[in-house]
Amino acid sequence: MVCVISMRNKPRLKDPVLIEGLPGIGFVANIAALHLIRELNAQLFAEVSCSSFQDFAVTVEGGQTRHPINELYYSKGTRGERDLIILYGNTQALTSTGQYELCGRILDVSKELGCNSIITLGGLKREQQVEQTRLHFAATDPETATQLTALGAEIIKGHIFGVAGLLVGIGRLRGFRGFCLLAETLGLYPDVEAAQRVLTVVDQMLNLQVNLSHLEDTAEVTHKLLKNFGLLDQSQDERKKESEFRWFI
Amino acid sequence: MVCVISMRNKPRLKDPVLIEGLPGIGFVANIAALHLIRELNAQLFAEVSCSSFQDFAVTVEGGQTRHPINELYYSKGTRGERDLIILYGNTQALTSTGQYELCGRILDVSKELGCNSIITLGGLKREQQVEQTRLHFAATDPETATQLTALGAEIIKGHIFGVAGLLVGIGRLRGFRGFCLLAETLGLYPDVEAAQRVLTVVDQMLNLQVNLSHLEDTAEVTHKLLKNFGLLDQSQDERKKESEFRWFI
Amino acid sequence: MVCVISMRNKPRLKDPVLIEGLPGIGFVANIAALHLIRELNAQLFAEVSCSSFQDFAVTVEGGQTRHPINELYYSKGTRGERDLIILYGNTQALTSTGQYELCGRILDVSKELGCNSIITLGGLKREQQVEQTRLHFAATDPETATQLTALGAEIIKGHIFGVAGLLVGIGRLRGFRGFCLLAETLGLYPDVEAAQRVLTVVDQMLNLQVNLSHLEDTAEVTHKLLKNFGLLDQSQDERKKESEFRWFI
Amino acid sequence: MVCVISMRNKPRLKDPVLIEGLPGIGFVANIAALHLIRELNAQLFAEVSCSSFQDFAVTVEGGQTRHPINELYYSKGTRGERDLIILYGNTQALTSTGQYELCGRILDVSKELGCNSIITLGGLKREQQVEQTRLHFAATDPETATQLTALGAEIIKGHIFGVAGLLVGIGRLRGFRGFCLLAETLGLYPDVEAAQRVLTVVDQMLNLQVNLSHLEDTAEVTHKLLKNFGLLDQSQDERKKESEFRWFI
Repeated sequence: MVCVISMRNKPRLKDPVLIEGLPGIGFVANIAALHLIRELNAQLFAEVSCSSFQDFAVTVEGGQTRHPINELYYSKGTRGERDLIILYGNTQALTSTGQYELCGRILDVSKELGCNSIITLGGLKREQQVEQTRLHFAATDPETATQLTALGAEIIKGHIFGVAGLLVGIGRLRGFRGFCLLAETLGLYPDVEAAQRVLTVVDQMLNLQVNLSHLEDTAEVTHKLLKNFGLLDQSQDERKKESEFRWFI
Repeated sequence: MVCVISMRNKPRLKDPVLIEGLPGIGFVANIAALHLIRELNAQLFAEVSCSSFQDFAVTVEGGQTRHPINELYYSKGTRGERDLIILYGNTQALTSTGQYELCGRILDVSKELGCNSIITLGGLKREQQVEQTRLHFAATDPETATQLTALGAEIIKGHIFGVAGLLVGIGRLRGFRGFCLLAETLGLYPDVEAAQRVLTVVDQMLNLQVNLSHLEDTAEVTHKLLKNFGLLDQSQDERKKESEFRWFI
Repeated sequence: MVCVISMRNKPRLKDPVLIEGLPGIGFVANIAALHLIRELNAQLFAEVSCSSFQDFAVTVEGGQTRHPINELYYSKGTRGERDLIILYGNTQALTSTGQYELCGRILDVSKELGCNSIITLGGLKREQQVEQTRLHFAATDPETATQLTALGAEIIKGHIFGVAGLLVGIGRLRGFRGFCLLAETLGLYPDVEAAQRVLTVVDQMLNLQVNLSHLEDTAEVTHKLLKNFGLLDQSQDERKKESEFRWFI
Repeated sequence: MVCVISMRNKPRLKDPVLIEGLPGIGFVANIAALHLIRELNAQLFAEVSCSSFQDFAVTVEGGQTRHPINELYYSKGTRGERDLIILYGNTQALTSTGQYELCGRILDVSKELGCNSIITLGGLKREQQVEQTRLHFAATDPETATQLTALGAEIIKGHIFGVAGLLVGIGRLRGFRGFCLLAETLGLYPDVEAAQRVLTVVDQMLNLQVNLSHLEDTAEVTHKLLKNFGLLDQSQDERKKESEFRWFI
């Protein structure tokens, strides 16, 4: 199956921006995306299942199952805000090949909906608590870079792993413009402050006027969802041990 | 080839339930599925071979070969029982990508035969012998969850690895309803008692009226089949060592 | 590309038998297949390249390149011998998925040429020198098993890894009949005696009347070819080390 | 996506030679290819993105992103030089399967443009500084081998890993002629002298008349590009550690 996208409907959007919000360091993007979905009342229009996601299910309250999934939401601006496509989910792909397939399919769908702009979000891991959470960026073009520098972000030094780097990278090959924006974080728990920092910049650039006062609630919801998926409070060793016995339920 | 399904014939079924019974912890599902096949005289209608199964063959008595395979059987109810599709075999896929492909194809075939319900079975590993084997479940919807709670099963805490979790998980995405039912087990050998526990609940829900008095025989057959395949009495280290020299017969 | 088969021509054969002779323990099959090719003057009709073969080339005398490849030869019987398709090469696939793909494609081509019978050959590793090299088999059906027992072969205990097991295993699923025949070997070097043992039985069953007096020469050619490919005289550790720097020529 | 080739245009070439110049030991091929592109003013006509490339992006000066990519350039001879297709890039594929896919696609495109000749370049790792950098080759045919011997190159002993070996190997299967040319190098940094040695031979064989006096500049540009990609000054351990947390940005 590689990556199967189940479209519930095909929204009509005007020059939408794709915002990536999958789990990563500090779950910065994950909180930010969920907050945009909640505050803008964004609508789910597609579900993405990939054979490079983990092969398990978990239960949530009431005994219902949840499984590794990515979702696409849209938001239509009614007061002059940019239309959005929001990529949200509880996992990235497990292999680099899978990541390419996933990003390729997301870009296919986005292109079909008239999207030419990408914003990916994330955390930049710091070993020690910093006084002020700084923002770092990478952009597809000099104009966007200038814009981000003006908003106080610095150039990222080093690699940008995962979907945040890949979507911008292979997106540029396909004619997308955009940027990756990372906030410094200790990265241990869902980091509200880092999420607030990236959301503030995204809000300014896209004129979204999103209320950030409930961000703490969103972080708590994120924490709960992720805990169910074993993405928190579990060491690498424990995960490895589990994976060896993967299909021995 | 990925996954090739050889259909012997296409049975005509009425609202069938797919029951999964591949090897896993305690071989609970494997015993249960084989017992249903034997007691209901279920008919083999499809064989599934995947490139993510192990690449070896074994010999059974008389020198004949057996190889990693999954099989689909059907049973038509004649006294008011639900029609069944039973997924049986001697292996699951070796990689998580392979598991997705396998489950995707099984769901394709089931959907074609009018199936919208899934039951997956398994064992839930316990480190110590318990006085009473408890049952745990995860369900696709609140109604099914309520039903299982009424039958004495508890909500699963944690991950459901392998086909048992995945079939229900990606099945739900495709509109299937159903549940995963796990019985506590030490998981070292084919566990008759655990198999009996899950079969009793399945029988009640689907009105199968299966005779469980010969379950011990089925467990012995299962033990023998699995031993041939090296799924018992072999340490992880031995398996790893073998796999390094995999193609040096 | 997965597996690409370049057909030079499509031979017209009468009920041919596919004989597998890829490298494995003791290079028993490899010597045996090459000897059949040389003695029967079998003709190359197809080359097989798979993306699961190793990604390197080696040089042979005169500076020319050789690369990982599988080849198909045919031999038409002129004095009452069975027609043959011989699978020869310098590698098997590196992953179990690749092995499935490779075997699947070989069976496709064989089926197209009217083939319904398979013989796979190999060595069965023994830790100590034995007085007499015994033969072991696994068969797709009881008749073939009886025939091999009558010729002095014993039933294989345990797993048959690699193409030798897989071709017979998935072949049976597709309606092929046949057997896997392994000769005991220390497995360190191309084992002439083991090759002679399997060839004698194959010759008897197929009435090939092959001259085995030059088998030592064939073993030497095999040794030379394999040494070029680093399949001899190289430890696992050395191979592993090399593979880490694989694409840093 | 496996390998996606975005063609900007389809150049009309006369019997072109494909020259491979991807990163490898000493970055010999990488420097040589870039120098040909610069000196011959070769034009970019296709970009290659593969799902077996690394899944990250990096930033260069000014905050713009760069990602793993292969590129195809062409050069039309105007003074009697051979037409060229130059394969350039900042990575090879990460898996051997990926390498096969990549090489297969490059050969597809080259064949379409009328190409039947291949030259792959590289470094041959030496542990100690040598007095004179010797050249080593492997060729698809005896005539080419004789030609290279006459130019002072020796036959390669051992394996040729990666794209340099594979392109020539599977190219030969598809009817390409050509050779792999490696210069001895310590392999630690972009090696100008080794690049000069291979370029001199290529120049002689194809009558390119390329000015090699600015080769040092090209090596510096190569060094800078590669450093951004973490291909220099980073231990294997560091890379491994990073890859474990790959998608936790």
